[in-house]
Amino acid sequence: MRTIAWRDGAVEAIDQRQLPHRFELVQLRTHKEVAKAIAEMWIRGAPAIGAAAAFGMALGALESTAPSREALLADLAKVAQVLAQTRPTAVNLQWALQRMLTRAKDESLADVEALRRALTAEAQAIAEEDVAANRAIGEYGAELIRDGANILTHCNAGALATVDYGTALAPIRVAHQQGKKVHVWVDETRPRQQGAKLTAWELREGGIPCTLIVDGAAGHFMAKGLVDLVLVGSDRVAANGDLANKIGTYSIAVLAHENGIPFYAALPTSTIDLSIPDGRGIPIEERNPEEVTYCGGERVAPIGIGAANPAFDITPHRYLSGLITERGIVKPPFQENLAKLMAAGGGKG
Amino acid sequence: MRTIAWRDGAVEAIDQRQLPHRFELVQLRTHKEVAKAIAEMWIRGAPAIGAAAAFGMALGALESTAPSREALLADLAKVAQVLAQTRPTAVNLQWALQRMLTRAKDESLADVEALRRALTAEAQAIAEEDVAANRAIGEYGAELIRDGANILTHCNAGALATVDYGTALAPIRVAHQQGKKVHVWVDETRPRQQGAKLTAWELREGGIPCTLIVDGAAGHFMAKGLVDLVLVGSDRVAANGDLANKIGTYSIAVLAHENGIPFYAALPTSTIDLSIPDGRGIPIEERNPEEVTYCGGERVAPIGIGAANPAFDITPHRYLSGLITERGIVKPPFQENLAKLMAAGGGKG
Repeated sequence: MRTIAWRDGAVEAIDQRQLPHRFELVQLRTHKEVAKAIAEMWIRGAPAIGAAAAFGMALGALESTAPSREALLADLAKVAQVLAQTRPTAVNLQWALQRMLTRAKDESLADVEALRRALTAEAQAIAEEDVAANRAIGEYGAELIRDGANILTHCNAGALATVDYGTALAPIRVAHQQGKKVHVWVDETRPRQQGAKLTAWELREGGIPCTLIVDGAAGHFMAKGLVDLVLVGSDRVAANGDLANKIGTYSIAVLAHENGIPFYAALPTSTIDLSIPDGRGIPIEERNPEEVTYCGGERVAPIGIGAANPAFDITPHRYLSGLITERGIVKPPFQENLAKLMAAGGGKG
Repeated sequence: MRTIAWRDGAVEAIDQRQLPHRFELVQLRTHKEVAKAIAEMWIRGAPAIGAAAAFGMALGALESTAPSREALLADLAKVAQVLAQTRPTAVNLQWALQRMLTRAKDESLADVEALRRALTAEAQAIAEEDVAANRAIGEYGAELIRDGANILTHCNAGALATVDYGTALAPIRVAHQQGKKVHVWVDETRPRQQGAKLTAWELREGGIPCTLIVDGAAGHFMAKGLVDLVLVGSDRVAANGDLANKIGTYSIAVLAHENGIPFYAALPTSTIDLSIPDGRGIPIEERNPEEVTYCGGERVAPIGIGAANPAFDITPHRYLSGLITERGIVKPPFQENLAKLMAAGGGKG
């Protein structure tokens, strides 16, 4: 089961707002429906957002009534703008749009029909490459997991955050398949509770033992010696290794550092953005304060109280033990090693 | 308005489970009702629990049909046992029970009626002393707050956690009254959301500007330079200064330390337990996992997922800038200075 897939000329995706209580598939038939699904987080997670944006471009090409290649390219530029504005932090979105636009500009695609077919194929390729990247991340990352390990994760960087298999959860899946006993501490991850709703659901489905905790308890279990490794995903990695991830990640990184616990982020290279020197340049999405003032449909805070709701935070590279990518594990010095990694695999776009 | 008060031979208390949506008073007429109110957190916060336990003892004395002083003392020992078992972490509970039992054993109280009157008076004295202590904490603590300060607090250590005025919120109230501009970052404080439900309500009622954030966002705002001071309460301070407070406090203390932000706990001396050498000896209450798997009446986690729910954590004294008490601010070295503080005020029991 893919989180997002191309089926009969439409995008089929799991409606993640309904989990863990209902497993519902939605069919998205226009690029605007895809944009809405990304903005309202029916689909979320940096790699899944990238794949969704690519499929949105493919839909845009099919929707267009442009009579010429040039007119279709003009329409696609508008489609890309609509999709680009949905969420600012995950660079995979921009990366996928750029890759689709580059493909569209290939002059060997002589007519409108050829261009449409090429874009559908390119979006499917992006999705397939994501699955392959996650499997490789799983293989590399599993080497960090010893038998009997207690692993803490934050938010959801699992199959639901990607096309399949996951980033941070991929090494855990591989270790579990290798017969290692693992146990996962799942941070609830307020405000949207992706840990409780999505990660716990995925781990249960995979038969991997886990325990849910509130975000404030992560440090407590670290201090008690009950966490051996922290694995999280990422929405954007800057050239120096600073990274954006779900709000609360920075806190966990500092606590892991203070307690001498290895802290790794797992991500495909499509999440690495060498154009941004350090974390200060990564845009942080501010979401609706009602995500904080409400919980489970119930208003929590009194009327008249404002809330701040940054969806992500920046973890400076000095707190990272390494970055697990599909091309191997990047260790410090990150500036130098990320540049080498990206130069080595440059052909992949 | 007192959080808890003696009125017409019963205990009147704010039912804190209903806040911030409904302000409801409950009348507790027996020590078992008081025990239930503490265990189920209609009344919560270390100093309020202490006062409630004292009033519970006074009710127990009134309920007893013991014909003699000796029989009443035997009944009171049983009442104390019932109350002692409600919650394990806040030492104020044990402290208040011990003080009430010591008062009951005063041999100058010759008959049952004199003993009953003395216990009612003693419970009221404990409540009055708590208010006075909090006002003193406010005065001492306000000196730490500069005009324009951004203060972060966790859970509720306000009027609702005490008989009145609060511990961590007392310095903020005094600074506000002094005309200093202050702004409070209020941690939501999952699982029970005392920050969102109680602290935000108190600050709104007091006209003090505040912004609600999820627990995972505290570190983010510290790293952005938007937090000048952290003020929290405490449920028990060990002889070396290690302290128990609401789950998540340890994380905030580490983050404050990492970001060079002063971190103070505010507490009456009834919270200090010199009989315990360090934080490892403080019992940590484990509460119902449904507090974590549910939120706002809605099940969050999938069926079949377990949760761990420690209600408190331990902050080692090395992360503390100081302890604000009614006798002044205790600074490191805590072992030495706490011993001196308690010796100096020994007469107060």
